[in-house]
Amino acid sequence: MVRRIHNFSAGPAALPLSVLQEVQQDLVDYKGEGLSVMEMSHRGKTFDGIIVEAQNLLKELMGIPDGYKVIFMQGGASLQFATVPMNLLGENEFADYINTGAWSKKAIAEVKKLGKAHNVIASSEDKNFNYIPTEFNLDKAASYLHITSNNTIFGTQWQSFPDTGTIPLVCDMSSDINSHVVDVSKFAMIYAGAQKNMGPSGVTIVIMRDDMLEKSPANIPTMCSYKIIGGKDSMYNTPPTFGIYIIKLVLEWMKSLGGVAAVEKINRDKAAILYDAIDSSGFYRGTVEVNSRSLMNVPFRLPSEELEKKFVAEALKHDISGVKGHRSVGGIRASIYNAVPKESIQALVDFMKEFERTNG
Amino acid sequence: MVRRIHNFSAGPAALPLSVLQEVQQDLVDYKGEGLSVMEMSHRGKTFDGIIVEAQNLLKELMGIPDGYKVIFMQGGASLQFATVPMNLLGENEFADYINTGAWSKKAIAEVKKLGKAHNVIASSEDKNFNYIPTEFNLDKAASYLHITSNNTIFGTQWQSFPDTGTIPLVCDMSSDINSHVVDVSKFAMIYAGAQKNMGPSGVTIVIMRDDMLEKSPANIPTMCSYKIIGGKDSMYNTPPTFGIYIIKLVLEWMKSLGGVAAVEKINRDKAAILYDAIDSSGFYRGTVEVNSRSLMNVPFRLPSEELEKKFVAEALKHDISGVKGHRSVGGIRASIYNAVPKESIQALVDFMKEFERTNG
Repeated sequence: MVRRIHNFSAGPAALPLSVLQEVQQDLVDYKGEGLSVMEMSHRGKTFDGIIVEAQNLLKELMGIPDGYKVIFMQGGASLQFATVPMNLLGENEFADYINTGAWSKKAIAEVKKLGKAHNVIASSEDKNFNYIPTEFNLDKAASYLHITSNNTIFGTQWQSFPDTGTIPLVCDMSSDINSHVVDVSKFAMIYAGAQKNMGPSGVTIVIMRDDMLEKSPANIPTMCSYKIIGGKDSMYNTPPTFGIYIIKLVLEWMKSLGGVAAVEKINRDKAAILYDAIDSSGFYRGTVEVNSRSLMNVPFRLPSEELEKKFVAEALKHDISGVKGHRSVGGIRASIYNAVPKESIQALVDFMKEFERTNG
Repeated sequence: MVRRIHNFSAGPAALPLSVLQEVQQDLVDYKGEGLSVMEMSHRGKTFDGIIVEAQNLLKELMGIPDGYKVIFMQGGASLQFATVPMNLLGENEFADYINTGAWSKKAIAEVKKLGKAHNVIASSEDKNFNYIPTEFNLDKAASYLHITSNNTIFGTQWQSFPDTGTIPLVCDMSSDINSHVVDVSKFAMIYAGAQKNMGPSGVTIVIMRDDMLEKSPANIPTMCSYKIIGGKDSMYNTPPTFGIYIIKLVLEWMKSLGGVAAVEKINRDKAAILYDAIDSSGFYRGTVEVNSRSLMNVPFRLPSEELEKKFVAEALKHDISGVKGHRSVGGIRASIYNAVPKESIQALVDFMKEFERTNG
């Protein structure tokens, strides 16, 4: 019998059950073709159909306008932290960064490491990243502004995106891509590791405006050049074929639910159930300013670290998994990405009430 | 009913049926844990067991001595073409390269692109890469010698590796890793994209002597630094977890066959059947010098391009897939990696005889 736990892992994270079942069904013999998707030439007709469909579905669901390219890369957001400045930051140029937590910091550390000029124009480090800064002065000469749309560790999320005028807006959307409706035309570039809302780890989605592709210099590694990898439609070398196949299935699943707007509605319902449970309790305490709360990662604290430890251990006995906060901040965190069903949120909230009753 | 074709694809390529069946079995609910391997935290106990076991099995099967690290990276061999010189070639240093075909050329193009000093000390381009050069003068001051052990497009393979003394030998083994017994202690570094003999695309295996790890400079992208990624045991960021899991299963399969020596014996039998069929025919013609022939990729020609086209089309009707030569060289190529069963070779040879009988 198939067992399914309530998976609140921060990433790699829950995938839709129907997607996994389809993957399972076709694993050894894809659609009667006599081989697995894993065993297919990436240059063959079948895989070409898969990757093109994945790109088209992403364009359709996100409403990506003409003049943007969807590229599949490898190395996660962590490699993008370097490839963004390698490609988009010329010799006498500089970039602006906003620091909203651990991943922003890593992006900033990487631009620094490469010896590229940059300014951190806003930060929420003063309050341990429990809010999204709303006031900052953009330098009109900046080559781009880099932001992190959602902060998995601290549980904050940009509620609306800044209007940057002619300054290209570059956004790491790893942990909230396709969780809510976004106006892609506001962005010069969006990138996201797949392993939260889109598929397995090992694929990075890059959405880039065509004029930005032209900025890639000639003397950087080929595999780091947006211009080359984009120009070759993600097929300069063998792409991570199986991951791209699963992304296609996840996008089909999203479409069957009604698209991003419908998914956003579900996500808002899910998050409301959990935040309400926290707010209506004197036992649990949210750590994030209300107007910066994430729809995807919900961190909260209990009255003591001992109780938090006990909470994590007892949750597991109820098949509630992955709720331990990030090791750098402690506490509890429930990651409720697109594929985490409402029933899992309900199970968590029921457990929280029971735990409060017996330990409060 | 599960259908399985004879898969001679050059990569991504055939995987062992038993591995695919195990993946299928555990796809939705891994060993009763209630979630897929794709959905697990890479920092959890279960995945940690998987990645450590994959590393240990590789060490055991390849006989990797103490003092080497096994690292899982992303970006394929194509990214390694850049990361090798980025990490191992200091400012006033130079490297030697041997050019045995398309992949060597790409490695050389990349070191050139990065503006790093290098010499091509031997090449088989004079005969369209149909042999492996055996005479060359190594410069004792070179920081490393780079070779490509097997050339998928041209079907050549190093039969024995040069003794480079104190010069670190760096080898791209993407298309023949674990196909035959190799003395790893001869190498300072081995790297290989997984998608031929080891698993799905999207994982790169790097085997590196500890002293080489120390060469990584501080100002390169973190995700390109062997020192950092190796130092973090491939867990600096989220690794391609599902691919690593399949690599583990492939290694277990190899072990169940008796290890690399046993697999080599099978590979030699398989290759002999195919080369004998070519050599004993006046119709088919091998393109590679006999003493440079690959155990993995067997290219051959027919009397005309028309017949080659017909051969590929009719082979498909016999469920023989992927035998079209690389677009850059034409002809026929059968890739007979570890997971291609002897029965498939026999089916191909039977078809070749039949095709010769009716078209010869």
